Amino acid sequence: MSGIRLVGFDADDTLWHSEIHFQHAHAQFELILSAYVDLADARLHERLLETERRNLKLFGYGAKGMALSMVESAIDITQACISASDIHRLIELGKAILQHPVELLPGIREAVEAVAARWPLVLITKGDLFHQEAKVAQSALAHLFQRIEIVSEKDANSYRRVLAECGTAAEDFVMIGNSLRSDIEPVIRLGGWGVHMPYAVTWALEAEHGLATDEARFLSVREAREIAHALDSIERLAQVSQLQR
Amino acid sequence: MSGIRLVGFDADDTLWHSEIHFQHAHAQFELILSAYVDLADARLHERLLETERRNLKLFGYGAKGMALSMVESAIDITQACISASDIHRLIELGKAILQHPVELLPGIREAVEAVAARWPLVLITKGDLFHQEAKVAQSALAHLFQRIEIVSEKDANSYRRVLAECGTAAEDFVMIGNSLRSDIEPVIRLGGWGVHMPYAVTWALEAEHGLATDEARFLSVREAREIAHALDSIERLAQVSQLQR
Repeated sequence: MSGIRLVGFDADDTLWHSEIHFQHAHAQFELILSAYVDLADARLHERLLETERRNLKLFGYGAKGMALSMVESAIDITQACISASDIHRLIELGKAILQHPVELLPGIREAVEAVAARWPLVLITKGDLFHQEAKVAQSALAHLFQRIEIVSEKDANSYRRVLAECGTAAEDFVMIGNSLRSDIEPVIRLGGWGVHMPYAVTWALEAEHGLATDEARFLSVREAREIAHALDSIERLAQVSQLQR
Repeated sequence: MSGIRLVGFDADDTLWHSEIHFQHAHAQFELILSAYVDLADARLHERLLETERRNLKLFGYGAKGMALSMVESAIDITQACISASDIHRLIELGKAILQHPVELLPGIREAVEAVAARWPLVLITKGDLFHQEAKVAQSALAHLFQRIEIVSEKDANSYRRVLAECGTAAEDFVMIGNSLRSDIEPVIRLGGWGVHMPYAVTWALEAEHGLATDEARFLSVREAREIAHALDSIERLAQVSQLQR
């Protein structure tokens, strides 16, 4: 009876704050645009999201793509009336995200250390390769992970590839993360397990998922110190499930 | 006597055209800026390169970073006089690179197929994860490679990690690419071998390297169909070198 053989952690909004910085940038975007358009009328937030969604298949995830989408969206919304100085401020919003120091979530270092003492860990994160590597290095958590995988999209195919490279069956794998769409749903679809730890805010384009509300293969926790207990429960569930196979 | 055990290929400007698209965008940048400044006086190209060099440690490589650097540089050069419409044209230059179809270099498909028939291959490329994955998929060459590694910087550390994951000693590895700085020098420093296939143009920030002119561990070829012959020569050199150890 083996139970869990490998534990995966998401990075952004699971190990450290990320989305809050993007939402701050979005708020600043609206502030800069308020000099040109009536905030109440303009559906600024929706129009920026539409541009981001359209550009996602060209830019992928991350702050550089966000900055380019902001500039494009601002030019569109202001009918090209926005000043070059204000466009420069939008670019600085993107740079500020890239330069922001890594801030770990409360209790996460102790939680990751405790899990690392029991199982091999893999970090699986999506987004900009360069920025993610910089954050991993700055977090001083990298040594706790046997592998660090930065992927362009966290879908079933990406998880299948990572698990194959780790030589682990999905049934023996638990993924821990804040996103039902990127961290939990694709892993469960492959037959794996999940621990969902919601973050305070969720990007609108990340909020969509197709999980059943009574899905029995993942648990939710409110904070990092509950992770170890959730993994104990999943270990027992996995062992029972293995006995039944 | 084993000789070569693993062959690496670079991607941009080795398998397909890339830098030519960036140079086209730079030329368009100067054309757009010519409406604002005297091209003869303004050292436009140097100032854009300075911005790109400064931003490299924040943005990494790729078209999104180039587009952001272009916008930033244009605002600086025009003292914030550039119109929003012209800034939009700069962003479109970046998007055009991301959307450009992959064009393989002459004879490269046959050359890669021939090498793949004799040795396991690994693709090692740097730059934007999302764009590189899209190009690899579009190239229809991915199935010839045992591994595809997209790294943020092609330095000795990156090659050391990839070779360790492949279980190959540097002495048994040959890297094929257009950049002395990124493809040849770091591999030779680790004790490996190189085949240098120059591309028609080289990005100024990629031209610097510290290779000795009489370095005996790499060969230069002019075109893809010479690769197989160069690898034969290196195989013999590697075997002699292994006998001497």
